[in-house]
Amino acid sequence: MSKSLTHIDLDGTARMVDVGAKAETPRLAVASGRITMTRKALAAIRAGDAPKGDVLGTARIAGIMAAKRTSDLIPMCHPLMIDSVNVDFAFEEGAIRATATASLTGKTGVEIEAITATSIALLTIYDMAKALDKGMVIGDIRLIEKRGGKSGHWVAESCQA
Amino acid sequence: MSKSLTHIDLDGTARMVDVGAKAETPRLAVASGRITMTRKALAAIRAGDAPKGDVLGTARIAGIMAAKRTSDLIPMCHPLMIDSVNVDFAFEEGAIRATATASLTGKTGVEIEAITATSIALLTIYDMAKALDKGMVIGDIRLIEKRGGKSGHWVAESCQA
Amino acid sequence: MSKSLTHIDLDGTARMVDVGAKAETPRLAVASGRITMTRKALAAIRAGDAPKGDVLGTARIAGIMAAKRTSDLIPMCHPLMIDSVNVDFAFEEGAIRATATASLTGKTGVEIEAITATSIALLTIYDMAKALDKGMVIGDIRLIEKRGGKSGHWVAESCQA
Amino acid sequence: MSKSLTHIDLDGTARMVDVGAKAETPRLAVASGRITMTRKALAAIRAGDAPKGDVLGTARIAGIMAAKRTSDLIPMCHPLMIDSVNVDFAFEEGAIRATATASLTGKTGVEIEAITATSIALLTIYDMAKALDKGMVIGDIRLIEKRGGKSGHWVAESCQA
Amino acid sequence: MSKSLTHIDLDGTARMVDVGAKAETPRLAVASGRITMTRKALAAIRAGDAPKGDVLGTARIAGIMAAKRTSDLIPMCHPLMIDSVNVDFAFEEGAIRATATASLTGKTGVEIEAITATSIALLTIYDMAKALDKGMVIGDIRLIEKRGGKSGHWVAESCQA
Amino acid sequence: MSKSLTHIDLDGTARMVDVGAKAETPRLAVASGRITMTRKALAAIRAGDAPKGDVLGTARIAGIMAAKRTSDLIPMCHPLMIDSVNVDFAFEEGAIRATATASLTGKTGVEIEAITATSIALLTIYDMAKALDKGMVIGDIRLIEKRGGKSGHWVAESCQA
Repeated sequence: MSKSLTHIDLDGTARMVDVGAKAETPRLAVASGRITMTRKALAAIRAGDAPKGDVLGTARIAGIMAAKRTSDLIPMCHPLMIDSVNVDFAFEEGAIRATATASLTGKTGVEIEAITATSIALLTIYDMAKALDKGMVIGDIRLIEKRGGKSGHWVAESCQA
Repeated sequence: MSKSLTHIDLDGTARMVDVGAKAETPRLAVASGRITMTRKALAAIRAGDAPKGDVLGTARIAGIMAAKRTSDLIPMCHPLMIDSVNVDFAFEEGAIRATATASLTGKTGVEIEAITATSIALLTIYDMAKALDKGMVIGDIRLIEKRGGKSGHWVAESCQA
Repeated sequence: MSKSLTHIDLDGTARMVDVGAKAETPRLAVASGRITMTRKALAAIRAGDAPKGDVLGTARIAGIMAAKRTSDLIPMCHPLMIDSVNVDFAFEEGAIRATATASLTGKTGVEIEAITATSIALLTIYDMAKALDKGMVIGDIRLIEKRGGKSGHWVAESCQA
Repeated sequence: MSKSLTHIDLDGTARMVDVGAKAETPRLAVASGRITMTRKALAAIRAGDAPKGDVLGTARIAGIMAAKRTSDLIPMCHPLMIDSVNVDFAFEEGAIRATATASLTGKTGVEIEAITATSIALLTIYDMAKALDKGMVIGDIRLIEKRGGKSGHWVAESCQA
Repeated sequence: MSKSLTHIDLDGTARMVDVGAKAETPRLAVASGRITMTRKALAAIRAGDAPKGDVLGTARIAGIMAAKRTSDLIPMCHPLMIDSVNVDFAFEEGAIRATATASLTGKTGVEIEAITATSIALLTIYDMAKALDKGMVIGDIRLIEKRGGKSGHWVAESCQA
Repeated sequence: MSKSLTHIDLDGTARMVDVGAKAETPRLAVASGRITMTRKALAAIRAGDAPKGDVLGTARIAGIMAAKRTSDLIPMCHPLMIDSVNVDFAFEEGAIRATATASLTGKTGVEIEAITATSIALLTIYDMAKALDKGMVIGDIRLIEKRGGKSGHWVAESCQA
């Protein structure tokens, strides 16, 4: 068993992994998550979104900005110079799904950046709709796909053909 | 129907709500969420946690620090001077649950602060265990309880006796 | 002549003003500025703005978020808990005008917050349109109106009836 | 017509441009802007500046620090590792001019960094002199020169010989 | 023995103290520290400081800005709205002393803000002089005086008459 | 005498050094410092540290996170993509020693990052123990070792064999 908690020393101390010996390679990560809400809240977002798109537009920008700040939020994350990060939304039955894609050419992956973008985009939707529905639930946040780096191409099981 | 998307104008433009006329009252919010993972990853965190507590210790601090930065992450959130925010963890079957409690005396609630603390704490666990299990899923992030403010005491349905 | 550079000591040293003895009063500030650009760039923003409103929508959010971070950007500014900040846009002949309004109940004014929101909103427009027109000019950034505090109500001369 | 709003999709959605396929090349940008004010305010800054240089010294540092934070302020800007950024000032008739120069070896340009440094330096002057003159106007903020990258050497028209 | 590590629970978990029940009172803290260096480095700073004051001017601003960001740096610190923070310097035999004073009207003290301002000001001097002397030592960082709050007026022993 | 204050121009103006022409090389820096305190405070930290390690665990994370934010705190520091930064602690007679190691492959060194991590880790200990001992003193903060870059391997004198 060679794999372990990379951020924890043998004596249990939190550690930032040293990526100094790693090569810079192209990397990409896709993450996704969703927020479930009442019909009423969902309809209001859809409608509020019609003329100007501001609920999801605001959530998109919040997600993108948060991805750029990932290493400032997650203690053991390395600062990265992401080449790109974007967030898209889809209306599902009783829910809105957010999907974030991040990419860079670097020494370490962008999974956490993609998941951070997803989480903060969903949180922003929660914030903007909470007057309508305090019972919204954010869930199903997961890595969907990962390319590049030592572990190569990885696709979440439920997403594999 | 008096309630609506408070952050959206009649013409669909995103808006920060003006809380200038609100009174400062004591407020409290509790949020919770969980991350599911393989037995192996869970066992490693438990074990890694034994001597120094650093996986959950790191996640706790990340959650607390993120809560203090909520208005910097969520576009329409007001800057708040929180009186307190704390994060606790519990091991569940195949998962770790994070619960965050935030409080302040102020013009607006601390729900988003509590949910942000929960989300970032869970993301930190993901980051520190991702070498063991890329398929972890973060979910069930929701407001559990809210006290103070115009809407008074609110408890999530599934949590009511 | 009692007024002077409040942030500079008698010996020329930069100083943060002590607002400890000031009372908390309601305050409001309105600032405005504009970015001039080619017809082509202006038309593209108008058109790009039609379906989703994302150029100006992004600039609005950037302005609001920057206003909340004013004391982190401007060295001698006090941290403030703004009650509200919003940014609006208007198309003018060969230009887009941004107007920001900020308010709080506090010991010091929100002029700099309103001007910061204006400046960063205009910068965001520049960033998003620079592939079309590198020669855009940002200008006419000024305080339009100020209410509350020791100096009372103030309106910019060119805006007085 | 191949050029367009690079940050906007065909469907009007805000997008961060993917710079992954771009080569790292040396790039430089110079931006400039000015703040006009009353004689009295200008004289006070000059005088206050004499012994310790603190008004413009403070504005210079604010501009440099803001340039390093550009991607944190402007939603669609990439994080960059600038090689250098500096800010200079000149007294003009009834105004102070700020000129910022930024450089890096990277995949994308530093125009926005130079303009951000200029804007925040001027805002800092406004903040430090506002007790003397509320009617100051910040303007003429523009890109002066740009070197490197696909578009090569560019000089603002009014600055060409 | 009623006093203890206020940030640690009975079970050893890090905690943010709840200040919700505390009254807002005027508070002040003074901290100090010094950086020792070679004669040559000290002379260069003195000389470099003569015309424009930029070494110490830069250090002063870095200290003030860091103080405003204390709760973002120190995990268990509360966000505070400081009324004022300033930093002064004095040349000593083979060293430069930095003294920071912070004040606010609030629920908790500003000791950490004053010590943070002192530390970051000294670090900035180190950064700006390190080409001359890599062996500089930062030390004697301590709280000098504290007013307000439950513990009242406190003066460091070595500073008492 | 070729060495001088690199951040100061001939005319005394603060400057960020241009590292554009420097090659990217592997670099490492080790810094150290200590906080002296009463027996009682030291015993409480040791004891509080036993079950969960949270005092030093919190200080370690604060130090690591601050190192990643160095260029945001120290005005003339370049943004860096550190490969690694870690903080360790040792109990000494009447004191706790913090030692930070930072590394990167880049154009400029990581000394300030290592010293920043050390300083903020010690400040965090101060914050968490201040209810027990207001008279704690932070000192002996210095660079211990530096590898890579133009000046090659450097070891602090008192640390040389």
